[in-house]
Amino acid sequence: MSLNIPETKNPRVVIVGGGFGGINLAKHLKHAPVQVVLLDRNNYHLFQPLLYQVSTAGLEPDSIAFPLRGIFRKQKNLVFRMAEVTGIRAEENILETGIGELHYDYLIFATGSNTNFFGNKTIEANAIGMKSLIEAVQIRNYVVKQFEESLLLTDPEQIKAKLNFVMVGGGPTGVELAGAFAELRKYILPKDYASIPQNLMNVYLIEAGPRLLASFSEQTSQKTLKSLEELGVRVMLSTGVKEYDGKTVTLSTGEQIQSHSLLWSAGVKGVPVHGLPQDIILPNGRILVDDFNKLKGFKNVYAIGDIAQMTNDPRFPKGYPMVAQVAIQQGVNLAKNILLEMNGKVEKPFHYKDLGSMATIGRNRAVAEFAGIKMSGFPAWVVWMIVHLMSLLGFRNKLVVFINWFYRYFTFERGTRIIIKRGAANIVKLRQTVAS
Amino acid sequence: MSLNIPETKNPRVVIVGGGFGGINLAKHLKHAPVQVVLLDRNNYHLFQPLLYQVSTAGLEPDSIAFPLRGIFRKQKNLVFRMAEVTGIRAEENILETGIGELHYDYLIFATGSNTNFFGNKTIEANAIGMKSLIEAVQIRNYVVKQFEESLLLTDPEQIKAKLNFVMVGGGPTGVELAGAFAELRKYILPKDYASIPQNLMNVYLIEAGPRLLASFSEQTSQKTLKSLEELGVRVMLSTGVKEYDGKTVTLSTGEQIQSHSLLWSAGVKGVPVHGLPQDIILPNGRILVDDFNKLKGFKNVYAIGDIAQMTNDPRFPKGYPMVAQVAIQQGVNLAKNILLEMNGKVEKPFHYKDLGSMATIGRNRAVAEFAGIKMSGFPAWVVWMIVHLMSLLGFRNKLVVFINWFYRYFTFERGTRIIIKRGAANIVKLRQTVAS
Repeated sequence: MSLNIPETKNPRVVIVGGGFGGINLAKHLKHAPVQVVLLDRNNYHLFQPLLYQVSTAGLEPDSIAFPLRGIFRKQKNLVFRMAEVTGIRAEENILETGIGELHYDYLIFATGSNTNFFGNKTIEANAIGMKSLIEAVQIRNYVVKQFEESLLLTDPEQIKAKLNFVMVGGGPTGVELAGAFAELRKYILPKDYASIPQNLMNVYLIEAGPRLLASFSEQTSQKTLKSLEELGVRVMLSTGVKEYDGKTVTLSTGEQIQSHSLLWSAGVKGVPVHGLPQDIILPNGRILVDDFNKLKGFKNVYAIGDIAQMTNDPRFPKGYPMVAQVAIQQGVNLAKNILLEMNGKVEKPFHYKDLGSMATIGRNRAVAEFAGIKMSGFPAWVVWMIVHLMSLLGFRNKLVVFINWFYRYFTFERGTRIIIKRGAANIVKLRQTVAS
Repeated sequence: MSLNIPETKNPRVVIVGGGFGGINLAKHLKHAPVQVVLLDRNNYHLFQPLLYQVSTAGLEPDSIAFPLRGIFRKQKNLVFRMAEVTGIRAEENILETGIGELHYDYLIFATGSNTNFFGNKTIEANAIGMKSLIEAVQIRNYVVKQFEESLLLTDPEQIKAKLNFVMVGGGPTGVELAGAFAELRKYILPKDYASIPQNLMNVYLIEAGPRLLASFSEQTSQKTLKSLEELGVRVMLSTGVKEYDGKTVTLSTGEQIQSHSLLWSAGVKGVPVHGLPQDIILPNGRILVDDFNKLKGFKNVYAIGDIAQMTNDPRFPKGYPMVAQVAIQQGVNLAKNILLEMNGKVEKPFHYKDLGSMATIGRNRAVAEFAGIKMSGFPAWVVWMIVHLMSLLGFRNKLVVFINWFYRYFTFERGTRIIIKRGAANIVKLRQTVAS
């Protein structure tokens, strides 16, 4: 097997990663006289902002994943290959992958980020991260299984340990997860597991800093805290997680919580490819780039999105936030710059245009800040839904997600709380092939 | 952990299996003075007739699975537990499960059937069965992976082996699978994998008997054969599969086909529980029952659906066909009989009312036979869609499936051809818990 990329006389632009940055860069090279090679370990683009809804049985995994071949079917200058990048030999302009090598004229890393456990191996071994589709599906399976198994127990302390769900990290993901779990407690528990007293299930949200949603205004943080507490979430601010062995969460205050489920969204980190010089890789795994997303010391290698650290904006002295909007805008800007450079013109430095941020907390509850406006409650929730529906790729996905939300709104029901588990013997072969 | 079933003074009816038979039996006991205990290894009812569409990327797995708790939320006399049945001690009226024992007054096995490889261990080790949701999802992953990997090959013989899909068994499942694969070849291959010549992908349907759909009329068999051949399927009748080592299919004619994908739907068998007397278990694993679905020699133990073999109908000397309609009707009849028996009245023997059969072959193509009417082509296809949509449980599932079909009809697109694979390290823990 080899990558089997067609020969071309045009410059070859190799993009590693089909996330928000990668696909926007590729799209904006559609009419350029280049060959675009897009590589991703998966064959789909994942709409990460809605991942937490898959893990809490609100959406099917298929609704938030869109096949990359579908996105680029009409882009004649693009070749997609499912491949894992293993290294780079920059002096030769060669990228190494699990299925062969590839010469590039331009190389862009758009590989995103992974869960960051900040070096705590015990937590890493026992906590649950949430960055991939399979993780979200398995969290859903795991959570429903906790509910089912709680029915088999009689000791309230044992039931509590099964139904205590602890979220770590008070950013948008942690807030959205905590809200979704609180809604499972409020709407699903009394209906489907009526024999379990509601006070045996508790949802915790633990944040090391003094407030939730640190990137929002103080006022929005307060509203978020109030909304979550109204939903029954136990929010603990200025509190860190010291240790977690799979059964007991030990907090920085010395307090302990019995829980089989610690969901970690307290940080993300980059995972840079093998072969890059160590002096441009930061402790959080991000790669240092200049104002044009070019790797320091390189001529034709770039990084965009979460994996890139650019510090040309005084508002963001530690680099831009690791959010979709930065990745999208850097992708679009880099596409323009590659064309400018090919035509011998002067490239344009990246400037981030903050379009605002939002987070949903639950039914009729969200917060949003954009263009100097602060919204909360029902209006913010409607805006949140519209923005996310519009951003989803593909008509089919939009419609299916809309129906799920509409249905859930009026029935308080979660359609997809099924446990897909393996069992049949002759699956072993399939699993080995697919997992490899 | 224990099953933790509430004590009751009413007779306890234990149903093993939440398929078509089990849920219809349970539903018809809704107003009876009994405690119904429903056990299933999964927490959902699976709509098996559409499983082949999940495996060919036409439907999301969640659309054809419905949580059992959702179905029975309003049935106050029913308790559901996710449990695997391991044995029976009939003399004590005790059922054994993986999480404890349970006393029953009435016990019903509605455990369905599994793939039957007729004792050929090599085929069993290398072929792919299709009876469970996880199998269907993994087939989808596997098939899309074959397409992706075919792009990495240059030798036409190697590409052929990857893109030859061999279905064994000319019953409805085999016919529907072959039609769906032929449509992947016709509509998806040229669009998404345009660099691969269509003649390198071939779909085979192999049937040991002299015609397809043996339970239908001769005329319908002919029409099905014609339709499949028009779609490009290579149908081989009166041909058996002698051996399959994962790479080469050896046929009874001596002919060989290179293929990495053999999908086996040539037979099903029952898997009876440990502890039943061997003399009432047939070689195909079905349990002999009398006209009232009662196990021969038992007073209060029954079997319904695929697992039961009843021979009171001269039209079906080898027992009723293993289809949903038989299971549903037996479930309803048994519910009535349990009530009659409790009231000291005479039970009614089961009589099968054949409502007809249908199979879909592809876009605008199906066959149907009911009430003496034979349909084919577009009208049969419309009837097939309506019947299957109406039979799906739950409004949400109906709507999502309808949208997928509608969308696919006009776009020739398959929405869900994503490969969900595992990769992240800290999934190991989740996998172990969920798979156990």
